[in-house]
Parts: sequence; C-alpha cells; structure tokens
Amino acid sequence: MAYELHYWPTLQGRGEFVRLALEAAGAPYVDVARGADGADGAGLGEAAMLRCLDDPQLAHPPFAPPFLKDGAIVVGQTALILQYLAPTLKLVGRSEPVRVWTQQIQLTIADMVAEAHDTHHPVGASLYYEDQRPEARRRAAEFCRLRMPKFLQWFEATVQRNPAGTRFLVGGRPSYADLSLFQLIEGLRYAFPNASQRALAETPAIVALHDRVAALPRVAAYLRSDRRLPFNEQGIFRRYPELDIV
Amino acid sequence: MAYELHYWPTLQGRGEFVRLALEAAGAPYVDVARGADGADGAGLGEAAMLRCLDDPQLAHPPFAPPFLKDGAIVVGQTALILQYLAPTLKLVGRSEPVRVWTQQIQLTIADMVAEAHDTHHPVGASLYYEDQRPEARRRAAEFCRLRMPKFLQWFEATVQRNPAGTRFLVGGRPSYADLSLFQLIEGLRYAFPNASQRALAETPAIVALHDRVAALPRVAAYLRSDRRLPFNEQGIFRRYPELDIV
Repeated sequence: MAYELHYWPTLQGRGEFVRLALEAAGAPYVDVARGADGADGAGLGEAAMLRCLDDPQLAHPPFAPPFLKDGAIVVGQTALILQYLAPTLKLVGRSEPVRVWTQQIQLTIADMVAEAHDTHHPVGASLYYEDQRPEARRRAAEFCRLRMPKFLQWFEATVQRNPAGTRFLVGGRPSYADLSLFQLIEGLRYAFPNASQRALAETPAIVALHDRVAALPRVAAYLRSDRRLPFNEQGIFRRYPELDIV
Repeated sequence: MAYELHYWPTLQGRGEFVRLALEAAGAPYVDVARGADGADGAGLGEAAMLRCLDDPQLAHPPFAPPFLKDGAIVVGQTALILQYLAPTLKLVGRSEPVRVWTQQIQLTIADMVAEAHDTHHPVGASLYYEDQRPEARRRAAEFCRLRMPKFLQWFEATVQRNPAGTRFLVGGRPSYADLSLFQLIEGLRYAFPNASQRALAETPAIVALHDRVAALPRVAAYLRSDRRLPFNEQGIFRRYPELDIV
C-alpha cells in the first residue's frame, strides 16, 4: 500500500524532507494535499489533509503537517517520520548506535531549520513577515553571522570524523540525514545566497556531500520533475535580500 | 555502570527532562558537571563536560548539552536521549506504534520548550535578554495568547483521547512524555504565572496529570531533594513579569 504524505500543497517546507526520502528510495506514495479532490471520490486535496488533521476520531492526531499515514499508523513530526520510514526505505544503517547517531544528526538539522525559519518570523507565525521586519533583521544577523557557521561546521566535523570516509554523514551509504542536509544547503543557498556562500566556503566536505546527494539517480530525476516545487516566499527558506547579511 | 549525564550545572534547562526520567526510574547516574573536579581524579565538574564536548577523538560529538554517556555510546538531543533510555528505564510501552506516538508527543513538547525559550531570546542566544527586550515583549505576547493555549489544548486532547483512560498521555502507565509534560507545566507556571493559569484553566486533564506525576514516589522524593535545582533566570523558563501577558 502506498504511503500517504500530508503536507501543504504549495510549498516545500518541512514536507520536503519526507518527500526526498520517499523519492530517493523509490517508495510509492500519494502526496495527498497536492492531489485533486475530484468527483472520482479519491478524497485528495488540501481539504482532505485538513479533514484528516481535524478528525475527532483520530486517536493520534498530529500537532501540524507534515504527517504520514502508513495504513493505520499516523506519524507526525518530520524527524520522527524519517526515523520511522528509514529502516524500510533502507536509508539508515542496521545497528542501534548507527541509528541513534543518524537521528541525532537529523534532530540537529531540524533545530537549524527552525532557526532559519525564525529569521523571517522572530515574533510569531501568526503575523506576516511585513509586520516583523525590524526584528527579522536583527535575528537574521545573528543567524547569518553566528548560528549558520556554527551549525555548518558541526556537520562538516561530523563528515570529517566519519570512520567510513567523508562521502556521507554516517557510514558509507546515503542515509535520510544526508538527504536532509542536502535540502538544508539548498534552502540556505536560496534564502541567504551571500551568507551561505561565505559559510560554505569553510565546509568543503558537506558541499561535496550535497553534490553527491543531488547526483543520486532517483534524487536527480525527482529534482528535474514537476513533483519538486520551487522555493518561494511561503516556505521555511525565503529570499528576502535584506536578511542575507554578511 | 552508571549513566553519565552532561549538562550545565546551575540551571534546570533541557537537562532536567533527562534528569526526571533517570530519577523517576531510580536509575544510577552521575550528573557530571555538578560534581567536583577534585584531586581524587574523578574528573567531574563543568570542565569535564566541556573536555568531553570538545574532544577531537569523539566520533559522535553532540552539538550541545545535554548529552548522555552510556558506556561507549554518546547520545545528544534531549528527545533522543529520552527515546534511547526509555525502554531500559521502562518509561515507554513495548509496541512500535506506542513508541512512535510517545516520541511524537515528546517532540511536540520539545517544540513548545523551544518557543518558551525564545520568548526571552527572540533575536538570539548570543545576546542578553536586556538587549532584546522590545522584541521579547512582542514574541511573548504571541506565545502567551496563541501558542501556549494551542499547544496545551493539543496535550489535553491527547490525554482525553487516550483509549486506556485519562491518567497519562499514552496507555495506563507513566512514560517519559508524562514526565516532560509535568516539567513543561512547572516551567510555564514559573515563567508565566498569569498566562499559564488562564490557559491551564481550559485543560483540566493535563493539570491532573501534572499532579499525578508529581506524586509518583521517586519523583516526589527527587523534587524534595537538593538534586532538584530551583528555576532561575539562566534557564529556559525565566520569570520576567513583563513577558507574562494575558
């Protein structure tokens, strides 16, 4: 049975980390909210996602999209969805220490994603960016000058210390954390072209890893397809030039 | 062998979520940074934690405290430390769906903890609160009026929908997520006495759950001990009256 991915239909956002894992593994999935809620009763579209999220019968209601339905199981929280999927999709090693370490990296990626988001929404997600521009400028300066280099250097050290070599974050094969690090670098380059260029100049191993992930045949095919949404100013990574502070 | 918990010695912070799990289970542990780096060579104290964090030989360096050492395994990220410990400490059910659901709740608690922190540091952790007070007021208003009720009502719904009854979040016995929800409510009441009172008036089931956790014999003994640090203005939950907005 195909997995059901539920996420907002017009942006990459956090759903993209899950989409990349499903695509890289060639796993069958339905991108529920991006389907048409047609007369054929397929029950797709954003309304279908919201019906699911608001279903009072659901014993395990997610707090927010993305969430994944795998038969009767509903899983929310991006990093947890990936951790849940990875053994089946063969996107993580077999031993417990390797799985714990991969998830530690993933949760650190999630922390950086949240901080990248908050550069344009430092006051709150209920307000427009235009209503918090002075605060955003200050937060973005902190992010670009301190946090981005600190996180990226930690990922760099992680690759450099990998006993299996510097091709991937953990072991010698790509894991879901590599796919997410690829997406994080894509997003930083979109949102902060100047600040990310400066920070990534100091982290050559993760830049090479990014290119290695992009060249994986299924990932490359996905990135060329119309299933890959472009970045835009609704998602986590937004190009506001005034926030790209070097 | 005793677990080693590494966390800043003068604040509850994120380390407290791990401490509560170890205490509730009666597990042996050394609170490394709170020990004395004495002439007996025990190698404790904050310096010992920082030596460990900065050790270039460490294959799996955590990004930040807290982290746990369990023999040769080093685990960072609060929610992951708890997920790792819980089966051994008998603080989670046995089936995979139950474990996934418990961790989904934990990660949602972690999201709320991060948002509570950012009320006093909306611009960045490298600056003092005093250097970001106007931004903090705006962010705290959003948190107190919108985010706190939204999160707490989700936890309330989770308890209300628990098929095993409303005593705990998952199943009929306390899990690590219950311990963390207890700590979250403690922190909200400390930092936002007025706003949390208003929000918690709408969520009686999780208030009762909080009291049930506090009365667990090992938790109650821990809370009375000097191992329990008081809340203060260095941690995640800080009492700045101007941020307690109703």
